[in-house]
Amino acid sequence: MNRWLLPEDIADVLPAEARKVESLRRAILDLYQSYGYELVAPPILEFLDSLLTGTGSDLNLQTFKLVDQLSGRTLGLRADMTPQVARIDAHLLNREGVTRLCYAGSIAHARTPVGSSAREELQLGAEIYGCATWEADFEAISLLLKTLSVAGLNKVYLDLSHAGVLEGILDGQTIAKTDIETLYSLLQSKDRPRLAIWAKCLPAKSAEALMALTELNGPCAQVLANAKKALPKHKLVDEALAQLEKLVCATATLASDVELSVDLADLRGYQYHSGVMFAAYVDKLPQPIARGGRYDHVGQAFGRPRPATGFSMDLLTLANLAPVAQRKSAIVAPWAFDADLAIKIAELRNAGEVVIQAMSGDAVETAEYFCDRELVVQGGSWEVNKK
Amino acid sequence: MNRWLLPEDIADVLPAEARKVESLRRAILDLYQSYGYELVAPPILEFLDSLLTGTGSDLNLQTFKLVDQLSGRTLGLRADMTPQVARIDAHLLNREGVTRLCYAGSIAHARTPVGSSAREELQLGAEIYGCATWEADFEAISLLLKTLSVAGLNKVYLDLSHAGVLEGILDGQTIAKTDIETLYSLLQSKDRPRLAIWAKCLPAKSAEALMALTELNGPCAQVLANAKKALPKHKLVDEALAQLEKLVCATATLASDVELSVDLADLRGYQYHSGVMFAAYVDKLPQPIARGGRYDHVGQAFGRPRPATGFSMDLLTLANLAPVAQRKSAIVAPWAFDADLAIKIAELRNAGEVVIQAMSGDAVETAEYFCDRELVVQGGSWEVNKK
Repeated sequence: MNRWLLPEDIADVLPAEARKVESLRRAILDLYQSYGYELVAPPILEFLDSLLTGTGSDLNLQTFKLVDQLSGRTLGLRADMTPQVARIDAHLLNREGVTRLCYAGSIAHARTPVGSSAREELQLGAEIYGCATWEADFEAISLLLKTLSVAGLNKVYLDLSHAGVLEGILDGQTIAKTDIETLYSLLQSKDRPRLAIWAKCLPAKSAEALMALTELNGPCAQVLANAKKALPKHKLVDEALAQLEKLVCATATLASDVELSVDLADLRGYQYHSGVMFAAYVDKLPQPIARGGRYDHVGQAFGRPRPATGFSMDLLTLANLAPVAQRKSAIVAPWAFDADLAIKIAELRNAGEVVIQAMSGDAVETAEYFCDRELVVQGGSWEVNKK
Repeated sequence: MNRWLLPEDIADVLPAEARKVESLRRAILDLYQSYGYELVAPPILEFLDSLLTGTGSDLNLQTFKLVDQLSGRTLGLRADMTPQVARIDAHLLNREGVTRLCYAGSIAHARTPVGSSAREELQLGAEIYGCATWEADFEAISLLLKTLSVAGLNKVYLDLSHAGVLEGILDGQTIAKTDIETLYSLLQSKDRPRLAIWAKCLPAKSAEALMALTELNGPCAQVLANAKKALPKHKLVDEALAQLEKLVCATATLASDVELSVDLADLRGYQYHSGVMFAAYVDKLPQPIARGGRYDHVGQAFGRPRPATGFSMDLLTLANLAPVAQRKSAIVAPWAFDADLAIKIAELRNAGEVVIQAMSGDAVETAEYFCDRELVVQGGSWEVNKK
């Protein structure tokens, strides 16, 4: 008789909260519409190969697998919509120019992500395809800050990084995929002693640069100045630092209350990203509320590489952090076969009121609405009275 | 290189269509809000046992199964949200009075349903718990007709049935579950010769009544009058016919252009339903666009039986039938670091306009928007001009 139990880290969204999520969803999608983003809705199931295209092994472990009775092939329940949206841009729309897409839909993780307590999310995001320059990254960052502001989160900490820095440092080296994964986790945790051991196989200059990366984090101007001194001269490194500089300057012109920092060793989601990467933090949440960046090579696996940048977040987490929404007030009406009553109720509903008909004399009990008025007969007609 | 292929009967929803679905979703959820329905969002994954509670073997075959790494138990990817919403009413809300819930979310079918070409749906529905009388069924039918009208479908054919009729006829008989399933399919297809053979094991009176059911379909008044004569006197049968009569009368008072009919042998979804059942048809779609009815015993498996009635439909199918939506017009703006331009763009967006900034001089190409204006410098200030 425990059929009402849910699996670990999977939960229902109940009335008051669900309406808050819905309002926020609408406000954010309207914001994206005002910027000209087009809405797409890829399916929750796809062939596993397609879902994991261009992504890391992390996503493989995170993806629920199931068997398709119709094809006998393995399907995945999506754990991330970004590769799906890249597929849509690459193949279905097949446009040459800049394409802006946005989406909101359920995703699931086979294992609870670190720092989270939910295996299901309502992923919401926006992506720009076809623009290889930093302007697109800047639009993504601006839109992300606007999104957080719509949710009432005005104080934001934005952490920037760039995949090109490491690419430049390791240029010319051939390193096995598993070794690269180790390297990223050592950089992420800034584990200098182990990183020194790991880097022994590299030329001294590269090893020194890797060690320097672990200290290149903090306020933008200072970190970028230090990076120019500490990192080896390389086209990719120089370009990366120049791009970060432009973004920092441009973001400072925005009206938002955003605190910018750079962490050149923070390369989460690396296998995916190819340029600028960013993570937005807000008070009361240790993990980033949103993440994004450039992932130019994802479309390649679909046969059509296109520059791509964007961001995504979990709408449920966002709604949870947003200020408590005011409950909508409602009018309680009796149940009766009365033409005048039916007309009055229809009028009120068309005017935007919530009218709840009380059936079988039962009390009306709701979490989403606040019943402060009732419909009663007064002087021969139906009138709304305070309760 | 076929990574962009999707599994059979699984599809993306692309820009213009996705926005149509989104608009319709909002309009319908707003309608439900005006009736006092509270929004809930159960998870897409649950323990299989919970998902299949109180439902038929059909739903078991329809449900994708997967293994939960955390518990080792079998999870199901929901093929129907109704049992989930019943679970929420029975356990999480735990209210005594009437509760109205609505929902909209993705569901998936392991096999393509008969007559459909989609294994994924956006299921949208509304349910009333805690009211055992016909008024709740009437509200469900009224709301369903309003929903179709919001989607521009005003001519509706509503087919009514009642699970109580067969229950009355078979009262006192013990029939194996598989035999019952055969019976339902024989009744559904109105296969009189095979039905006659099947019914041989029953008392003559019951067998005659079953044969009579296959002819009890057509215009309401006539079918209900015939049913009173042809069916045996039984409390359950009489109650069922009386309820149908009340619903037919009440529905006739609604302003909708609805053609009502009764088919007492149509008991689709029987294992689920316990009272009035209905299916709504519209022109150009051979399958019902929406289905609903009473399913009082679903909550029982969750330890708390509650009267329940409601309906659900696929929002993607509904959007497909709805009239083509007008594309929103958009303004194209250049990309420039110009404070006046930024202010002008922000003003236009806040006023509800779509402003698309053209990056790197690329042409703007969209399916969702129609770019008929542009921002240009005129007499020293930024102005909107026709293109």
